[in-house]
Amino acid sequence: MPHPVSPLAVPLPELAPIKGMRLAVGEAGIRYKGRPDVLFAECVPGTIVAGAFTRNRCPGAPVDWCRHVLRMPGGPGGVRALVVNAGNANVFTGRAGREACARTAAAAAKLLGCRAQEVLLASTGVIGQTLPDEKITAILPELHKAAREDHWGSAAKAIMTTDTFPKGASRTARIGGKSVRITGIAKGSGMIAPDMATMLCFVATDAQVPPQLLDRMLKAAVVGSFNCTTVDSDTSTSDTVLLFATGQAAHPRVTLQGRDMLDDFGRALNEVLMDLALGVVRDGEGAQKLIRIDVSGARSADSAKRVALAIANSPLVKTAIAGEDANWGRVVMAIGKSGEAVNRDRVSVAMGGVWMARDGTVVDGYDEAPVVKHIKGREVHVEVGLGGGRGTATVYTCDLTHGYIDINGSYRS
Amino acid sequence: MPHPVSPLAVPLPELAPIKGMRLAVGEAGIRYKGRPDVLFAECVPGTIVAGAFTRNRCPGAPVDWCRHVLRMPGGPGGVRALVVNAGNANVFTGRAGREACARTAAAAAKLLGCRAQEVLLASTGVIGQTLPDEKITAILPELHKAAREDHWGSAAKAIMTTDTFPKGASRTARIGGKSVRITGIAKGSGMIAPDMATMLCFVATDAQVPPQLLDRMLKAAVVGSFNCTTVDSDTSTSDTVLLFATGQAAHPRVTLQGRDMLDDFGRALNEVLMDLALGVVRDGEGAQKLIRIDVSGARSADSAKRVALAIANSPLVKTAIAGEDANWGRVVMAIGKSGEAVNRDRVSVAMGGVWMARDGTVVDGYDEAPVVKHIKGREVHVEVGLGGGRGTATVYTCDLTHGYIDINGSYRS
Repeated sequence: MPHPVSPLAVPLPELAPIKGMRLAVGEAGIRYKGRPDVLFAECVPGTIVAGAFTRNRCPGAPVDWCRHVLRMPGGPGGVRALVVNAGNANVFTGRAGREACARTAAAAAKLLGCRAQEVLLASTGVIGQTLPDEKITAILPELHKAAREDHWGSAAKAIMTTDTFPKGASRTARIGGKSVRITGIAKGSGMIAPDMATMLCFVATDAQVPPQLLDRMLKAAVVGSFNCTTVDSDTSTSDTVLLFATGQAAHPRVTLQGRDMLDDFGRALNEVLMDLALGVVRDGEGAQKLIRIDVSGARSADSAKRVALAIANSPLVKTAIAGEDANWGRVVMAIGKSGEAVNRDRVSVAMGGVWMARDGTVVDGYDEAPVVKHIKGREVHVEVGLGGGRGTATVYTCDLTHGYIDINGSYRS
Repeated sequence: MPHPVSPLAVPLPELAPIKGMRLAVGEAGIRYKGRPDVLFAECVPGTIVAGAFTRNRCPGAPVDWCRHVLRMPGGPGGVRALVVNAGNANVFTGRAGREACARTAAAAAKLLGCRAQEVLLASTGVIGQTLPDEKITAILPELHKAAREDHWGSAAKAIMTTDTFPKGASRTARIGGKSVRITGIAKGSGMIAPDMATMLCFVATDAQVPPQLLDRMLKAAVVGSFNCTTVDSDTSTSDTVLLFATGQAAHPRVTLQGRDMLDDFGRALNEVLMDLALGVVRDGEGAQKLIRIDVSGARSADSAKRVALAIANSPLVKTAIAGEDANWGRVVMAIGKSGEAVNRDRVSVAMGGVWMARDGTVVDGYDEAPVVKHIKGREVHVEVGLGGGRGTATVYTCDLTHGYIDINGSYRS
């Protein structure tokens, strides 16, 4: 049963085609009926890829597969295809799951005349059920024929599970005076895990980027986007971010020495991933409010981030905001439980720009009216000052509502 | 507005008086009207005390006060009184809060003819509001007169906030062939923090225990009880456990060398704290089910505990159990997100004694009927085998329900 569209939804923007990357979607009927559930993408020879994966210690078979391929000699090497399915995560499936991966990759490789190791895989859906890979491989030939560069919008929809709206983003950037494109899609309605709320994110660019730099730039962009968002602190067994660079754009060659040429590309890549990460938070299960948490005055940026995440993951903070209660005392509690060495008597808290507590005590007679108005809106801003250094961090999350309990308490039934 | 009594509630047992500890409760009207909200306890001279406190880095003023007193030269020294209030936590109150503590302790000390440092304090309730200590000190003289050794039951009720039932436990133990008593009370409906769900626990015994041993035994008992329970992972700014030993029982003297004499006392102390800790979980905000999680096969006991707590604190696991869904995939996810180095392909999961996943894959054709029946009950048992060592741990928690959102999303209104 589909859930109502999140009130925080944003429309899918125009997604620019990427030269050298053709996509197609199809219905394999893995779990869902009457909607696409498989995405196939074909890349031109010479495409390179970088990846970032879940830190969960019980990863799915497709995560193992991608990690293995990306670790092969030569680092993030050439890749020719991507096969993604929704409805079954192929997690905790033992040997049968590994074999399903190998067969799927082999079938795609055969179509393209490449090696299986040049095919990347991702799955999202129920845990612990053997993946019916024959349903996927049966439709690969037709997907191969149907693949086109302008299919990003339908791709964004095909990878949805409990998502209530598709997520995509496009940017252009300049490299050596020439224009390049970046387009990405994501799914996920929570940082959350089984059965079906894994985060998957696929981004492509026509830029030519040395593999080492591509890898480094992707990881930095993930740290600054997905790693600054949280829905419920649970970590999926299948989270996967892949960045494909087809190298089809006509810009001057970038060398390791000339990496400054990629500054604008890096800016655009960060923006694409941030758009996608915020899309996932906006589709947080049951989310009614987008919450931005800014922490300053920490010993370091890492310390600031740990404090911000402690606030963002606190069920008490999230339920208070769901109840439109500007309960700064719970923010103080969450700061204290972060484990960071904060000086309580320098801690300050604001909501909606109004400082309600300063230097370890309540601000007598602060104006509550603008705070009340602010917290009734769709976007809530929490600011924390720790008064102990120059470290800052920003984290996004959503509120914790009855909708979350509804979705997750009756998911499989 | 009072919440309905938890379906997991247990009746308050008979609480044995402890010779040398007299208690009284009264109505100071700090926040609640028409019910007791202050507990006063007077101890005979020579009473010693041990304490354990929240790890939250933004602790309340009474926690600072108790820590200071307990750290004074000579370690956990003599104590003559305890003053507790519900309705205002005296947290994040700066200098005004420190002064309120000093005045309250001074008033109690004056009544008893002792020093202020011989008075311990605890507060639970709203954060960030100055404690009206004059309301407390105004009724101390009448409480001092009314104090009796058999008032433990009313004491358990006076310290309640969002609790839906009072918690208490009594045990007897043998020291050197003589009988001693231990009685304790606790409040808390969640490990959770502001506004009012702090955990407070006060235990007394008539045994004579050397201060160093009392301190060590209390800390071990806390690790094996309160630290093995969790409601929502949030940590109060005021959590306080105090153990008073009046030394009024007539048993042979215990020396540091003769600590074996305390084995049975230690067993009884652990049981009292475990009863109280389970009472807090049973009163977890919105709890409908008590969940026991047993982890075995870990590298160490600490590792097993981290895995068990990751499961116990996972919103996805807790909502699945609330929905009576035996979703072992979410347990696998939580094991993986614990950060512990587990071998996925050795992981096994059971609910209600039925192993549904073994050695990294689903058990084909396991009997689902007894699992479905089990998860519909009030007590749910999750077992995890990691296949990697001899470390074991047991943790208790409760499910995450609409009741939690109701209570915490509309608390202050």
